[in-house]
Amino acid sequence: MPLTGDMLIGQAGVRGTAGEFHAYDPATGGSLPPAFGGGDRDTVSRACELARLAFDGYRETTHGVRAAFLDTIAARILDCGEELIERAMAETGLSRARLEGERGRTVGQLRLFAATVREGSFVEARIDPAMPDRKPLPRPDLRQRHIAVGPVAVFGASNFPLAFSVAGGDTASALAAGCPVVVKAHNAHLGTSELVGRAVQRAVAECNLPEGVFSLLFGSGADIGSALVADPRIKAVGFTGSRSGGTALMAIAAQRREPIPVYAEMSSINPVYLLPAALHARAAAIGKAFVASVTLGAGQFCTNPGLVLAIDGPDLAQFIAHASAAMSDSPAATMLTKGIHGAFEAGVRKMGLHADVRPIARGKPGTGANQGSAALFAADGAAFLADAALHEEIFGAASLLIRCKDLAELCEVAERLQGQLTATLQMDPADLPLARRLLPILERKVGRILVNGFPTGVEVSHAMVHGGPYPATSDGRSTSVGTLAVRRFLRPVCYQDLPASLLPAALEDANPLGLWRRLDGVLGKH
Amino acid sequence: MPLTGDMLIGQAGVRGTAGEFHAYDPATGGSLPPAFGGGDRDTVSRACELARLAFDGYRETTHGVRAAFLDTIAARILDCGEELIERAMAETGLSRARLEGERGRTVGQLRLFAATVREGSFVEARIDPAMPDRKPLPRPDLRQRHIAVGPVAVFGASNFPLAFSVAGGDTASALAAGCPVVVKAHNAHLGTSELVGRAVQRAVAECNLPEGVFSLLFGSGADIGSALVADPRIKAVGFTGSRSGGTALMAIAAQRREPIPVYAEMSSINPVYLLPAALHARAAAIGKAFVASVTLGAGQFCTNPGLVLAIDGPDLAQFIAHASAAMSDSPAATMLTKGIHGAFEAGVRKMGLHADVRPIARGKPGTGANQGSAALFAADGAAFLADAALHEEIFGAASLLIRCKDLAELCEVAERLQGQLTATLQMDPADLPLARRLLPILERKVGRILVNGFPTGVEVSHAMVHGGPYPATSDGRSTSVGTLAVRRFLRPVCYQDLPASLLPAALEDANPLGLWRRLDGVLGKH
Repeated sequence: MPLTGDMLIGQAGVRGTAGEFHAYDPATGGSLPPAFGGGDRDTVSRACELARLAFDGYRETTHGVRAAFLDTIAARILDCGEELIERAMAETGLSRARLEGERGRTVGQLRLFAATVREGSFVEARIDPAMPDRKPLPRPDLRQRHIAVGPVAVFGASNFPLAFSVAGGDTASALAAGCPVVVKAHNAHLGTSELVGRAVQRAVAECNLPEGVFSLLFGSGADIGSALVADPRIKAVGFTGSRSGGTALMAIAAQRREPIPVYAEMSSINPVYLLPAALHARAAAIGKAFVASVTLGAGQFCTNPGLVLAIDGPDLAQFIAHASAAMSDSPAATMLTKGIHGAFEAGVRKMGLHADVRPIARGKPGTGANQGSAALFAADGAAFLADAALHEEIFGAASLLIRCKDLAELCEVAERLQGQLTATLQMDPADLPLARRLLPILERKVGRILVNGFPTGVEVSHAMVHGGPYPATSDGRSTSVGTLAVRRFLRPVCYQDLPASLLPAALEDANPLGLWRRLDGVLGKH
Repeated sequence: MPLTGDMLIGQAGVRGTAGEFHAYDPATGGSLPPAFGGGDRDTVSRACELARLAFDGYRETTHGVRAAFLDTIAARILDCGEELIERAMAETGLSRARLEGERGRTVGQLRLFAATVREGSFVEARIDPAMPDRKPLPRPDLRQRHIAVGPVAVFGASNFPLAFSVAGGDTASALAAGCPVVVKAHNAHLGTSELVGRAVQRAVAECNLPEGVFSLLFGSGADIGSALVADPRIKAVGFTGSRSGGTALMAIAAQRREPIPVYAEMSSINPVYLLPAALHARAAAIGKAFVASVTLGAGQFCTNPGLVLAIDGPDLAQFIAHASAAMSDSPAATMLTKGIHGAFEAGVRKMGLHADVRPIARGKPGTGANQGSAALFAADGAAFLADAALHEEIFGAASLLIRCKDLAELCEVAERLQGQLTATLQMDPADLPLARRLLPILERKVGRILVNGFPTGVEVSHAMVHGGPYPATSDGRSTSVGTLAVRRFLRPVCYQDLPASLLPAALEDANPLGLWRRLDGVLGKH
């Protein structure tokens, strides 16, 4: 079935009437068919009402049914085959290899959440049995489980058209938790969104779930997204994108009659610390690997290393020489959209004009539309400490090297950084004492600490944290990647003295689901 | 050592110079010595700086040290002996029995958190071992634990001078998580706060902890509290009190350069549903027990049943007759403060003047200062649905009976209620079908669902949830009572490829702490 440009409201295709717009091929600047119709407040309201109607039934589906649903979404995405990859390539300028890899990641993510739902302990069942003879007062029977918070609004991200978009991590974790999802598609990959949306829509029907479990909205401006977050039926928000976008949603959510949680993953410059012994031993190798990380995917990763810090000296000069050589050799790469490319060029230009910043290297110039050339700058520690503007992210393949005059300044810079998704230590055994000094600072500032790697590359697993203190995210108590992400969409409910016939299966005496539960605080399969 | 009226900033006693004020005895209206000195922005800043300095050291104390600290606080509170009980009686008008019980609850709560820290699985350790040979890409070694968020501001509540105050649930759970605490004392029990604060201060010294782990501030207006929440060193807030107070703190926290979580437990009318078969069989008993719950502690509980709902008819008339008789017999009771008494009287007066509300019963008139007489009102379902003012809490022994014309209206009222801490079903076996219909609605609206009990009485245990959707609390994903409360003050951090010598004990291969951990997602003591 060819692309229609229609929204998916439950099982229906709905033509939006609030303006027409197209997807663009950033490599050519040309528009791609078909025309997409933008939704309006009525469309938002219809999707939210369907989600509300679906909620009570969907959240109480068995773990088996919900897991099968997630697996079915994965299968239907794979069924899209070549059409999905080609459309995503045309809309994003990303390579086939990257998009095939991202599809694998997306499908694997859905399956990991399916496994998490099957395992079932995310409901965190707790039972404190009654003590009818306790003095001075008897204790009632108390049982706790976590339930889904309600319908969730998800905003697709431009830079991961599959893994952080229509059926990406936010959607997968919300569906796993038992929340219906209403997605606002990102305009950078409208056709990709429709294809994936139809895969989810098919899975809903195939699994006999209420149609409101999933809807997909299109809209050219911010109106649809604002209306979605403001809708009283929406109970949480998942977003990956810019700080301005994320903070706008936070403000809307906070001003609602009933404020709701917003999980916005926003901006991060992901500092890389080059510790002295490692720099002395491996300046060349680190320099090359650093540039490979900066330029990966045109630098369009939340975890792109936009800041590198070291103590000034001859070893750092070596690093600079090798990094500069590698960067000068790096080809320009098509960026995701004209807007992102323009913002990257403007950010690089502004950084280059900063009085305290010295340009160090540029990648090869672009040869086609919307191509970004990598850029490396340098400033000293005092300049960085003096100007908050130097702490801002330039989204794309740009990084700023901070030359600290000594260890104390390096630690001061570390202490003054805002919240980040990641921090990386390049270190050798002789750097351990300094690493020990930095570690508590980094723990306070970031969600993930790496040693001798680079932050690009975010494993989807149980122990991953893709999150961090504000402004890296709006809510540093969570992660948007990995199985812990499901917790964002859950809340605890306690049942006191409920008759057995009213108890949810997770809390029945016999533990029919075979869950790990806390019995009087003691964890076991009881 | 007699009361000084001095603040406790770390180990120092600091005389506040921003105004002098006194505690009051609500039973007499008279002021109590000594004079307390109010803090200013400098005092707040000093307490927060000490907390910041203490944080890295305190959060990495061993679980044993932290548990011993919590146990020591409990012991030092008991050491206060009669002086504490007498002062609390004088400041609150609450009875000796109630305050001795509350002291037991407070001490037990500290010990339960000590046990939770010793057990250790609140850090939620997860390990995904490296897969160096995985294709196409190797998997790094990933380890996750939860760490303390940072210094926490705690606001004492007027209605629990021990259990929800200086060393109450918020303080105990924050200290358990590894967060230093800065308490703003409630002006309704200043002397009690100083006594308990000194007990905590002594425990800090005795356990050789950094002094900034605990400070106690006094202040007569809202300035100190506002400055505390705005301080960039504070990373989370615990509050129990009014909706206006809670939402004011939420606004300050949201407007910070780095917004922070606020856990405010605010207002709830705790609906009690009288289902038909139960009402038919037990109208008299339910009526009496209901009045006992409404009037307990002068009605000054967050979980006071301020709303009771039933289908109109002769059985409900029986309930009204028995509840009215019981309430008419109920003695007036001294309320916590002149302000609370005044607000109660104003709320009762306003309710009585409402065109659609009929007064049903009053308790006996007061005979002394600040005594509140219980009040029961009635309105029909349509009136309740039509006027949001009828959904507001009157803090104190007042309740509103809603006479619904039929089952459909009862369910509609249930659906239209705001978020609540609790909902209660009075039901008999024949009510099961209706209970099944109500249950999903209640799960969406409240933190705790009770059957055939009354919501006053909140067990401190593992399965308790004292929380609920807004406006019952600012953050329905949490609880302020029970061991899950510790999670409010934790956030996840992931360590990628860290050398063994840098790993925290909780994540070492050998599991030296004997923790429950997830190894590749599988829970075990490995």
